[in-house]
Amino acid sequence: MMDKKQLKISTFNDALDQIKDGMIVGIGSGSTIELLVPKIASKLDQENIHITGVCTSNKTAFIAKELGIRVVDVNDVDQIDVAIDGADEVDENLNLIKGGGGALFREKVIDAMADRFIVLVDESKCVDYLGQTFKLPVEVDKFNWLLVSKKIEADQNVNTIRRMVDDVPFITDNGNYILDIVLHKNIDPYAMHEYLIHLVGVLETGYFLDVTDQVIIGTPAGVKVVQK
Amino acid sequence: MMDKKQLKISTFNDALDQIKDGMIVGIGSGSTIELLVPKIASKLDQENIHITGVCTSNKTAFIAKELGIRVVDVNDVDQIDVAIDGADEVDENLNLIKGGGGALFREKVIDAMADRFIVLVDESKCVDYLGQTFKLPVEVDKFNWLLVSKKIEADQNVNTIRRMVDDVPFITDNGNYILDIVLHKNIDPYAMHEYLIHLVGVLETGYFLDVTDQVIIGTPAGVKVVQK
Repeated sequence: MMDKKQLKISTFNDALDQIKDGMIVGIGSGSTIELLVPKIASKLDQENIHITGVCTSNKTAFIAKELGIRVVDVNDVDQIDVAIDGADEVDENLNLIKGGGGALFREKVIDAMADRFIVLVDESKCVDYLGQTFKLPVEVDKFNWLLVSKKIEADQNVNTIRRMVDDVPFITDNGNYILDIVLHKNIDPYAMHEYLIHLVGVLETGYFLDVTDQVIIGTPAGVKVVQK
Repeated sequence: MMDKKQLKISTFNDALDQIKDGMIVGIGSGSTIELLVPKIASKLDQENIHITGVCTSNKTAFIAKELGIRVVDVNDVDQIDVAIDGADEVDENLNLIKGGGGALFREKVIDAMADRFIVLVDESKCVDYLGQTFKLPVEVDKFNWLLVSKKIEADQNVNTIRRMVDDVPFITDNGNYILDIVLHKNIDPYAMHEYLIHLVGVLETGYFLDVTDQVIIGTPAGVKVVQK
């Protein structure tokens, strides 16, 4: 049986086929995309074509540049033709939870801006409801993070956990903390997202609602493509 | 005739009277508050009372500490009894524009959290509509600030200007840029605020809507107090 890594790699050809010469391509973050970037670089070499990449994390940008892909700042482009990214959870409406890697803000900027947004996952990421297997990451300002966390817990009757790495708080590329919220089945993602973005100190949530155009799912039986 | 500074100072006694022993006091930012802080320190000395201050800017915190006021982090308090701050504009509903000094995010955290929020202004700040004399400051992430600025201009038919200081972009205490939006009379503050906070990359707006309890206005004829 294939492992998760193989399941993800099985989705790459469908995504690579959608990258064409001259495109501005949003390149996501996380373990799946870090495996995809070398395949993009190989495709460019083999087909002798060129793209411009805009990256959702410093790490992906570093990898892409090292492999010879032209990378520019998102402020230097007016549109993005296609963005390719992973996800932590996907529901049947193609809504997502993202942010396990902590780059949710930059991922949302690029993924939501792209004319076409493609998500690559293995089937373990497909869930009945958002929050089933993963917590909702929320990027919060350091200034009042503890107050925000207490307020969310009191208002929404949920638990929140400040993300830690090796006993110190995790810091995003933008210099903020991540709160991971333990969701439950009866939470409406749209209502929760609206509640959260109205809190002063919440920068973004890890809900990606109504932005996905295609999900490419690696399964042991083959690749499954779900269109919007 | 009194100058602006004297008009502001005339409002201090009404504000100082509302500071009581043991209170947690939100201390704002800007030129008015920088004049107020020494008066708070004198009051504490003269009456031999103590307060705990939470400050909306690094500069105010520095001044307060230098003058012997106990200052703590906003995350170390559960509530704020009273917050005192200036404003750039006040309308007849006690709604404000703030952020001329660039500390709008931290000001909003503290002012909105306080049980009672008092605003000190001279009468030049009282306007018929928000945006009449002042631009609306919006704190935006550096990552996609230019895209956000173009989108606001296209969607809302307004001009935006990235705030500069000595030919370099102004950076907030939180490490972000400020966009100043040129408003006009027919813009509804509530609708504009909702529009802006839904943009990925907008952290906060300089609209302070439905948070003010009292405005103390210095006028050449004396002090005018407007309650909610």
